[in-house]
Amino acid sequence: MSADTRPIDAETRATSDDHHALRLWLRLYACTSLVESRVRRRLQSRFGTTLPRFDLMAQLDRSPQGLRMSELSSRLMVTGGNVTGLTDNLEDEGLVVRESDGTDRRALRVKLTREGRRVFRTMAAEHERWIAEMFAGLSAREARSLAERLNTLKQHILDNVPLDERGTE
Amino acid sequence: MSADTRPIDAETRATSDDHHALRLWLRLYACTSLVESRVRRRLQSRFGTTLPRFDLMAQLDRSPQGLRMSELSSRLMVTGGNVTGLTDNLEDEGLVVRESDGTDRRALRVKLTREGRRVFRTMAAEHERWIAEMFAGLSAREARSLAERLNTLKQHILDNVPLDERGTE
Repeated sequence: MSADTRPIDAETRATSDDHHALRLWLRLYACTSLVESRVRRRLQSRFGTTLPRFDLMAQLDRSPQGLRMSELSSRLMVTGGNVTGLTDNLEDEGLVVRESDGTDRRALRVKLTREGRRVFRTMAAEHERWIAEMFAGLSAREARSLAERLNTLKQHILDNVPLDERGTE
Repeated sequence: MSADTRPIDAETRATSDDHHALRLWLRLYACTSLVESRVRRRLQSRFGTTLPRFDLMAQLDRSPQGLRMSELSSRLMVTGGNVTGLTDNLEDEGLVVRESDGTDRRALRVKLTREGRRVFRTMAAEHERWIAEMFAGLSAREARSLAERLNTLKQHILDNVPLDERGTE
């Protein structure tokens, strides 16, 4: 996504006859893009790194026992990174290792190295500060209400809206 | 983004010591990914098309006078599409045309053809129905409150958070 550095964003472009839900979706998309673009830009300028790389390290940081490549792929939030390629690069830089799994010698688990964990935690602390700065415009009450509405939206979709339609009349 | 078809989503993965703002951001990201993944999947299964292509046609539909390539690029919401390549394909299929600009003969404007407009409007009507279905879990009041909170978030970022930090102590 990329709604930043743009004179006109998605929401502004919605014409008045667009449905309310569509306007709300464009606003949601524009907000997410706005935060994401700042995170991407700052990861690049502060640490020379990318969001897919940061995301990959974040998943490994949350799994000290390591992850199989398939698990790692399925947990990534951000698309667009080649997981094998990203892992190869991080391994070359000494930030992750591939180790054979204790229970299944054919399977490899990827783990952060001690240095990888140190590098990630430094970035993560700053990343968290950026996020706090961006969300500081909301009071605690507004933030809670936003979180609740988003949860309602998410649950409704998960419970009622299939990934694919099963035929339309 | 891709938080769908995943056993564990971004928000679920946030550990308890993550900052509140970070949890809220992960929830926002997960929600946007959830809607976006359904839109992408359905555009593919119903119309054999992609989100960047749909987005490009949507921008042209909003600009009946056509757009220069540079304007078109700057208005797209979705990254990852090669604008020239997408335009070439749509032109080959008779859905868009490049015409020389009346005021500047060297510049070309891209426009939807009559057939392109027909094809887009058919998709757009269905797309709007999908979005309405996904947001139907929110009452009118909840939808309004969500829109207000998102607006507060967006304005705060635009007014206070530079794209790049100007040096940190």
